[in-house]
Amino acid sequence: MTRGLFVSFEGGDGAGKSTQVGALVAWLTGLGRTVVRTFEPGGTALGAVLRQAVQHGDDVDRRTEALLYAADRAHHVATVVRPALDRGHDVVTDRYLDSSVAYQGVGRGLGADAVERLSRWATDDLLPDLTVLLDLDPAVGLGRLTGAPDRMERAGTTFHRQVRAAFAARAAADRDRFCVLDATRPSEEIAAAVRDRVQALIGPVST
Amino acid sequence: MTRGLFVSFEGGDGAGKSTQVGALVAWLTGLGRTVVRTFEPGGTALGAVLRQAVQHGDDVDRRTEALLYAADRAHHVATVVRPALDRGHDVVTDRYLDSSVAYQGVGRGLGADAVERLSRWATDDLLPDLTVLLDLDPAVGLGRLTGAPDRMERAGTTFHRQVRAAFAARAAADRDRFCVLDATRPSEEIAAAVRDRVQALIGPVST
Repeated sequence: MTRGLFVSFEGGDGAGKSTQVGALVAWLTGLGRTVVRTFEPGGTALGAVLRQAVQHGDDVDRRTEALLYAADRAHHVATVVRPALDRGHDVVTDRYLDSSVAYQGVGRGLGADAVERLSRWATDDLLPDLTVLLDLDPAVGLGRLTGAPDRMERAGTTFHRQVRAAFAARAAADRDRFCVLDATRPSEEIAAAVRDRVQALIGPVST
Repeated sequence: MTRGLFVSFEGGDGAGKSTQVGALVAWLTGLGRTVVRTFEPGGTALGAVLRQAVQHGDDVDRRTEALLYAADRAHHVATVVRPALDRGHDVVTDRYLDSSVAYQGVGRGLGADAVERLSRWATDDLLPDLTVLLDLDPAVGLGRLTGAPDRMERAGTTFHRQVRAAFAARAAADRDRFCVLDATRPSEEIAAAVRDRVQALIGPVST
């Protein structure tokens, strides 16, 4: 059996990841493929506990935060992502290890390399086949959000600009894996661009 | 101000760590020193949540387990251990990073080096001034325990023998930091041997 396709969506809050994840999952499902839609942090029962601990704790230092996200990812990969891919199902996730490198490695100043090593160890080196980066000025993205801001959302403009630059740097360094799209474009145009990249990976679609 | 003394106790379950931690804390306190008595995993409020998640979860894989222990340790060091040492207080902990190397690195087969690197990163390289290893045949140690066994305690004889050997190997490789004591000796003799080692570290005691 062929391993399924693994796609992650990355970018700042309010960039439209959730909408695009939904569009891709609907399209893949329409092709007759079995698709697992998931997210990080908190995509498992244990992960939900960890997400709560990190995002609403007042005294969680940056190393603890990075390790909790890594634990969440390890559990998510071991219990959701890898089993699905091994069964031949596709997995589409809203955030994955590039978020940790951008937010904890660069934004929190722990070092991109150290945080990447942590995530690579946590996942036993499982990388997505495709990572869609929805690039957006954080001032625009944060303005789109509704509801009470969490810890990350409250972190300030400089932090979010560093995170944006970190995502862009990762994408520039690995063009094979990344697809960078301007998140201010109409949602339907973005979805079409994502489909083009995915189609190139899964081969001709006979519909 | 002088930094406080940092002592960890290590060894299998039932080796008498808790008794010896208590004896050392009482002795140091009697010398007029301020001592923080603590433990891992779960020595903080967040840690208690993590400990619960790891020890009683059915589907926690070994990488997730190791990362949760590392997160617990990072938080413990950042919020309890390092602030106390910086204030000049002593810290005596029941378990620290050698437990992770022995249990997760060797017992669970993740590799001693990988798990040590994880803990060194989690703690920003904070090592104890002295680590007391209470060495005991696991068959004896587990026989001493009462109550329902947790995940680790149920792991089997081979696992616990590997853990014992891993502790011994670490101690042999770092005799400056370690003090290895036969846990079958009378409790008062062990306490006296620990005091001798501690006294050598803190200098002449004027009582």
